[in-house]
This record gives sequence, structure tokens and C-alpha cells, in this order.
Amino acid sequence: MKVAALAGGVGGAKLVDGLARLLAPDDLTVIVNTGDDFRYCGLSISPDLDTVCYTLAGIANQETGWGLQNETWITLSQLKTMGAPAWFNLGDKDLATHLERTRLLDDGVPLSSITRGFCEAWGVKPTILPMTDDPVATVVIDTAGNRLDFQEYFVKYHWEPAVKAIEFSGIDKANPAPGVLDALKDCDLVVICPSNPYVSVAPILALPGVLHIVQQKPVVAVSPIIGGAAVKGPLAKMIGELAGQPATAGFAANYYKKLSILTGYVLDTRDELEGTLLEGWGIIYETVDTLMISTDDRMRVANTVLELASEIYGDK
Amino acid sequence: MKVAALAGGVGGAKLVDGLARLLAPDDLTVIVNTGDDFRYCGLSISPDLDTVCYTLAGIANQETGWGLQNETWITLSQLKTMGAPAWFNLGDKDLATHLERTRLLDDGVPLSSITRGFCEAWGVKPTILPMTDDPVATVVIDTAGNRLDFQEYFVKYHWEPAVKAIEFSGIDKANPAPGVLDALKDCDLVVICPSNPYVSVAPILALPGVLHIVQQKPVVAVSPIIGGAAVKGPLAKMIGELAGQPATAGFAANYYKKLSILTGYVLDTRDELEGTLLEGWGIIYETVDTLMISTDDRMRVANTVLELASEIYGDK
Repeated sequence: MKVAALAGGVGGAKLVDGLARLLAPDDLTVIVNTGDDFRYCGLSISPDLDTVCYTLAGIANQETGWGLQNETWITLSQLKTMGAPAWFNLGDKDLATHLERTRLLDDGVPLSSITRGFCEAWGVKPTILPMTDDPVATVVIDTAGNRLDFQEYFVKYHWEPAVKAIEFSGIDKANPAPGVLDALKDCDLVVICPSNPYVSVAPILALPGVLHIVQQKPVVAVSPIIGGAAVKGPLAKMIGELAGQPATAGFAANYYKKLSILTGYVLDTRDELEGTLLEGWGIIYETVDTLMISTDDRMRVANTVLELASEIYGDK
Repeated sequence: MKVAALAGGVGGAKLVDGLARLLAPDDLTVIVNTGDDFRYCGLSISPDLDTVCYTLAGIANQETGWGLQNETWITLSQLKTMGAPAWFNLGDKDLATHLERTRLLDDGVPLSSITRGFCEAWGVKPTILPMTDDPVATVVIDTAGNRLDFQEYFVKYHWEPAVKAIEFSGIDKANPAPGVLDALKDCDLVVICPSNPYVSVAPILALPGVLHIVQQKPVVAVSPIIGGAAVKGPLAKMIGELAGQPATAGFAANYYKKLSILTGYVLDTRDELEGTLLEGWGIIYETVDTLMISTDDRMRVANTVLELASEIYGDK
């Protein structure tokens, strides 16, 4: 079964890691959000791409989910000593990734080629694609009218501002990166990882041509909400602010259903009662403990996704 | 005695350190070459400014002359692991300087203001000015016609290419940084540090308005050549390639004499015989061991410069 997975950062990376352990490398393409990419102190930083690649390479920090294991913080400490703002966590080893990516981008190498090179260097076997080689910036507009770069909102302001709207600046002029549309066309299943629908999955779906193809494929999404809360990050708070309702596993399912792309849904066992809602919508579902910490956890959730896909194909 | 010193990197920083130990902070302004500044992996790097500031702050690496003491190289090692070109030595602490400078430059803060802020943070008391806030790039044109950024020529290619010409790209549109012309007008003495005349001192003198003021001031230069060799760097080789003659202490003196700016010259004792030449030109000189390693060495040479200046004022 050929799978194309749409992924954001930490949650997405964990499911993708599970999928990568169950599928042949040639059968898995991961399309990664780049709306969070930004320039920081001159460096081009791609947080979601790095999280996915580090995780698949087995070099990610297991505790934080982002960054590298056995990391040191000498440059960051020095920045603090100088009184410089140091809100973005730049580890010493992680810095090498940003420096080399920036050097190559400045030389005109597209992000997709750079990512391929990094994956080769790190021994990452599945195909990892940035959603686009063009600049797209996720902008959070808060209720005070401030326009915040996503990483400012997320890291600098600890997602405290109340969100009024989200924009993907540059999305209209952006093209899907080479390989993105083909991977979607050629796959048997699109997997939407348990990433934030508003800021991690929406930018990918908003790229010209993507939604139309995804609508014609079986799509299984994994709920990013467990028991009314997001495992990590601002999703539950955002649902309250943007949709005016509490965060539920069903809300996330409905988000994709409204885009006419949801075939199957993986719910956390804690949200089993919401299955009735999905049944009513004609969406098949499966429940499982979706909290992914260990490798076994990741494989368990990935396996549930693939079982649901088999069911979908069996149903046809 | 108010002194304005023109300085490049390591040699200049050492003499300036000696001067800073003999003069009141208000009486010393250092005008630093920025022609070597460049962008590397997205970072704005100012090698000469950093060397002068680190040296005066007492935090420079004593062995290399450039970079910081007790430095670590975690990011650089990681870059090498990734197969990235890593020809420029980016230390982990030094990286913080480059990141913060780049952040501020990208925010529109001029280099002179940034340098002032760094000096305050590092406890550097004399005034350190970049020669300009505008972009000027020293370009080395080799005999094969290649145009090399100075740091490429200097660090990446270990000054192996034979130099045919040197250009200061952007110099015509560059203005001296705020304070530069005033410091030169207000001083009693201009000191030309034992830096490379072609690539460290020439860019400063080539800025609009600078040479004219310097020509009206007593100027004492310290020979950058000792016994036919440069203490560090490509100067002796460059003299052979650009002037077609061997490097001598007298050659460097003549370089400044031809610009009508040389009043006094400090020669190394090993080059004492060249004193006759200087006498013939009507330039007063003093000999001293100009090799500066220890603090005492730096103070000895600085003291000789100031004695020569007193002689010049006594002669008047």
C-alpha cells in the first residue's frame, strides 16, 4: 500500500515514524508543512521538516520531540550573556542544520533538494518532501489585530495571544514542491497525521492542486485531540477561539469532513463515545490509545491507520 | 593626546590593545576595516571588528589572535559530519556574536550602533567604529581572473592564488560611519596599525573624505613587515605579486608616503638599516622589537608610537 502522509511537527513526526516502521521506504512519502518556516538571526529555519527528519533518522530529542538528542546549548547561553533575545531554542548541533540549509538556499538550491540531501546524510529512507519550495508564511492575527509570524506566536509568546484569524501569506503564488502532486496521485491512501488542522495541515491542503487530488483518494486522519485536549501545542485553545466551541475529537474530524476529504478516522479510546457521531456521517473509524511516546506506541497507531485503510479497501 | 587608530585584524588589534593601556578611553578611537565583512551561511560576519573588540575586551583567543578564548566547536564538527563545507571557523560562542549582529542588521540597526552595544556588553572602553555602516566588499582578483571575496581568498584558499588586483566594491557609495570623520578631525595623532596596507588600511583611506583629513594630521605608522616577512597573513606575498618586489619595512613606509600621509614610522629593530631610507625621505622613525605577543610587547610598541608622536610635536 502506497501512502502519502501530510504532517506538521512533533505529533506528525511520531505517526510518520510508526508508518516508516511498517511500510517499505518506497511506499511512504511524507509531505511536510513549511508554513512555520522563518528567518531567525539570518538563518532559514524549517521546524517541521527538521522534526520529521530528525525523528525518522532516530536522532531526535525523545523528551521534547523537537531538536536533537545529546544537544548542547553553548551558543544560546552566550546569546543570553550578551543580553540578546534568545526565545528560539537553537542547539549547537541543530545550528549546523540551519547554517547548511541557509547556505544552500542562498546558493539557489531548492528546499526539496536540500531536504533530500539531508535525508541521505542522516539515513532517512522514506521520501520527505517540503510541501513547497516557495516562501509561504503562516501568520497568526490576534484579537488585538497584531500579525505574528507563527514561530513568534508559538515559541516567543507561548501561544498566549487569542487568535482571530490565520493567513498563509504567499500561498497563492506557491507551487507544490516537485513530487508532491505525483505522490498524492500515485498513493493508495492519504494519511493526515495528528497535527494541528488549522496551522499544520491546512497550509498543505491550501496549495494549488492539492485539495482536489486528496478529495479523490481514501483519506484516514488521526485525531489530534485526546479527551478534549491537544497532546501538545495550541490546538484546543485555537478551536475555542476560532470556532467558539470546546475541542473534541469530533471537531477535528468535522474539519476534514467539511473539506470532503475524510474517509476514515482514528479516535483515541478516551473519545470512543464520539464514534456515534462519525457513524452518523458515514465515516468509518477505529479507536486506539493514540498517545505516542514509545516506538511501540507509534507502531500501534500507525498499524490502526493501515488496518482502517484495509477496511476501506475491503468495503469497496 | 587624542589618538585615532586605523586598524585591520590581528596585528591592528594588538597595537590598539597596547594603546588602550596607555591612553584614557576618551582619547582613543579605533576605526576598523569592514572590507572583509561577508555573509556566510546567512550570517553577517565582521572579522576585523570582532578581533579588535574581543582583544580589547580581554576575551580573545591568545594563541590564534582571532576568535574567543575557551571556545568550543560543536556546531562546526556537526557541519563537517553533515559533509557541509566548513572552511570558516565558527566557534560556538563566536556564533552568538554573528547571530545577534545579523538579527540587529536585519532589523535595520546600523553596524556602528551594534558595535557600540557589543562594546558596552563586553566592557570595551575606547570608542570602536566600523569604517562604514554601508556595504563594502574587498574583492581579490587573481591572475586567472577569478574574483574572490576576501575571506574566501584568505581563509578558504589560504591566500594561495596569486593576486593581480584588489577592489573595494561599493566604496564609492559608502559613507564613513558616524563619528569617523570627527574622530580624525579632532585627534592629535593618526596611528596606522601594523595591518596589511593593501587590504586592511587602504579601504579605510579610500572612503570619501578620509584621506584628505588624514593628510592634514601627524601620522605614525607601525611597520607590518619584520625582516622581510609579514608576521601573519599574505602581505609579503602580495607585495611580490602586486609591486613585483620583495617585502621590506621600507616598502610599507613608501606606500603611505606616496599617499602623502606619513610623518613618523616605527620600524622593527631587525630592519634598522632601512632607517637611512626613511631619513632620506624626511620621515622620522624609531626602532623597536615590533613583534607583539605579550601585553608588555603591545605596550612597548604603543609606547614607541606615542614617543614618536611627542617627538613630532616637539619638533614643531
